[in-house]
Amino acid sequence: MLNHQWVLAERPTSYPEPHHFRLVHGHIPQLQPGKALVKTLYLGVAPVMLRYMRNDTEFEAPLKIGDLMMGRGVGQVVESDCPDLPAGAIVQARLGWQEYALIDGAQHPAPFLLEHHDLPYSHGLSSLGPSGFTALIGLREIGNLKHSDQILVSGAAGGVGSQVAQVAKALGARNVVGIAGGAEKCRLLVEQLGYDAAVDYKGTDLEDALQHHFPQGIDLFYDNVGGPLLDAVLARISRRARIVICGSISEYLLPADAQHQFRNLQNLGRRDARMEAFFVFDYGDHYGAYASELATWIRAGLLQPREDISQGIASLPGALTDLYTGANIGVRMVHVADPESGV
Amino acid sequence: MLNHQWVLAERPTSYPEPHHFRLVHGHIPQLQPGKALVKTLYLGVAPVMLRYMRNDTEFEAPLKIGDLMMGRGVGQVVESDCPDLPAGAIVQARLGWQEYALIDGAQHPAPFLLEHHDLPYSHGLSSLGPSGFTALIGLREIGNLKHSDQILVSGAAGGVGSQVAQVAKALGARNVVGIAGGAEKCRLLVEQLGYDAAVDYKGTDLEDALQHHFPQGIDLFYDNVGGPLLDAVLARISRRARIVICGSISEYLLPADAQHQFRNLQNLGRRDARMEAFFVFDYGDHYGAYASELATWIRAGLLQPREDISQGIASLPGALTDLYTGANIGVRMVHVADPESGV
Repeated sequence: MLNHQWVLAERPTSYPEPHHFRLVHGHIPQLQPGKALVKTLYLGVAPVMLRYMRNDTEFEAPLKIGDLMMGRGVGQVVESDCPDLPAGAIVQARLGWQEYALIDGAQHPAPFLLEHHDLPYSHGLSSLGPSGFTALIGLREIGNLKHSDQILVSGAAGGVGSQVAQVAKALGARNVVGIAGGAEKCRLLVEQLGYDAAVDYKGTDLEDALQHHFPQGIDLFYDNVGGPLLDAVLARISRRARIVICGSISEYLLPADAQHQFRNLQNLGRRDARMEAFFVFDYGDHYGAYASELATWIRAGLLQPREDISQGIASLPGALTDLYTGANIGVRMVHVADPESGV
Repeated sequence: MLNHQWVLAERPTSYPEPHHFRLVHGHIPQLQPGKALVKTLYLGVAPVMLRYMRNDTEFEAPLKIGDLMMGRGVGQVVESDCPDLPAGAIVQARLGWQEYALIDGAQHPAPFLLEHHDLPYSHGLSSLGPSGFTALIGLREIGNLKHSDQILVSGAAGGVGSQVAQVAKALGARNVVGIAGGAEKCRLLVEQLGYDAAVDYKGTDLEDALQHHFPQGIDLFYDNVGGPLLDAVLARISRRARIVICGSISEYLLPADAQHQFRNLQNLGRRDARMEAFFVFDYGDHYGAYASELATWIRAGLLQPREDISQGIASLPGALTDLYTGANIGVRMVHVADPESGV
């Protein structure tokens, strides 16, 4: 039986486009000792993938031309010789962009089993997976969120950003402002994604807007964008502010010598503030606890994962491209197949 | 009886010089209800004082022309109507640049009593006072020091920097490199101040030196300097590095539009790193514990406070100026008077 797979065809010099990928027809792998054969149900896309494609990562093996595209997904174990990944289990793992994957428990970052089967499996790529954990870790473990914090979020309509305000509110926050591009996204931030106010970076003077929304300064900034936007925020941080660096999508496309030069970093020292980045997979020991918390909030209606799902493995390159054109709202993913019954 | 006092005569436009101060002859204040009269023994100087003088602080009331210079010192309570500050006690407090001060327990940041009277009172301005606490807090509470950390310290011959390597070693660190200006300071770093190696920023290509001393990257950077030096370090931080912002003396003199623009801040996000500033007076609840720890290390010979003491209140302006000319090594302070016996 065939196993459709997307491989890297060409390295992007700018943002990713469909011609950088090639669809190939492999075979479904044979089960091997100690391994599990997983049928892909959903595959996610993330801004960092461009870095793999451009061989611009620091702590990952680079992708070579012709290599299977890396990426995490939700799948069903259909055959197993691995006690940690029993047949029938729903697993979140590095499946790669393919319909069937042979994995084991030793892959890094490690696979984890989805519990909470009363909720859609797609949530394993949104609120019950790394993007939801990223929202929670960033706000609580890194951001040390306090109820009185005046909070700002950039990339607020994106995969992580679409969850940050709701998670912040579930943690007791009272004022969360989001930045996104365009009136439609800004409307959604306020009407559906839990934001108290939205700033349209395309239609507003950002400094004026920050002054308006944060007359006393920004206490916690959850940043998905970086670059000039982060610099503008540094100008308005309050004393003991925390800046959570989740991503810097504005900088991923730029060559090193074109990257933003920060004018306002000195405020970090002047205001006894903190700026911190983190890697969600360093928190793997807590995923079970995080997923239980987040699932509780979903069931209570405090958190509604916003998922932007296209159908079929053929739609993967377009899904990734969407992240860079500003087209997506919420967690962008692809539905590849349904689970088998009676595994 | 006279009370010699230094007041602000003129705001510096660049670094502080003696003509920015004026010595006036006030009177020793009368004791008032709830207050304590303190005789000044030692007065300290710190880079931040230039900011008071230039009215360039964010969280402090500015100094006006003619105001008494602010500053902390070690004094002896000679008369008291304040139960927290009994007569005879040795206190570290905001005394101002004067021979006698009337204080109470409500001044902010609060006064604290010196214990460990087997050690010199001058240590209340070095290792048993805020500069020693700053070394300890920066390394442990902010820097989360690990024994395996490859540590770099800028301003390593300065008040705080002269204590950082010794405190780091007492905390279990094994490799600490200091940056200072000039061969003589660098020799002292290694021979007397606990550094394993020294980099002379005046005589070396800094990037080459960092590459040489930190082939695997810098895990913990204790920064007293800021600006281009901090930027060069950002280029070489390791994964999960911690940058402790203690000071930015290179930037204090610069107008806002001349301050350094950082090229390498993006590495913070790429390497899951953290940059954090702090205010030692936020840790006042722990001073007693910190002082006990540091005193134990002093008695054991693990920490030898390097104090650069000039004699007489007349020498204060020159002591502050020294900080900006690179002339001082260790904690710069002025000996004003000896304690009275039989208080």
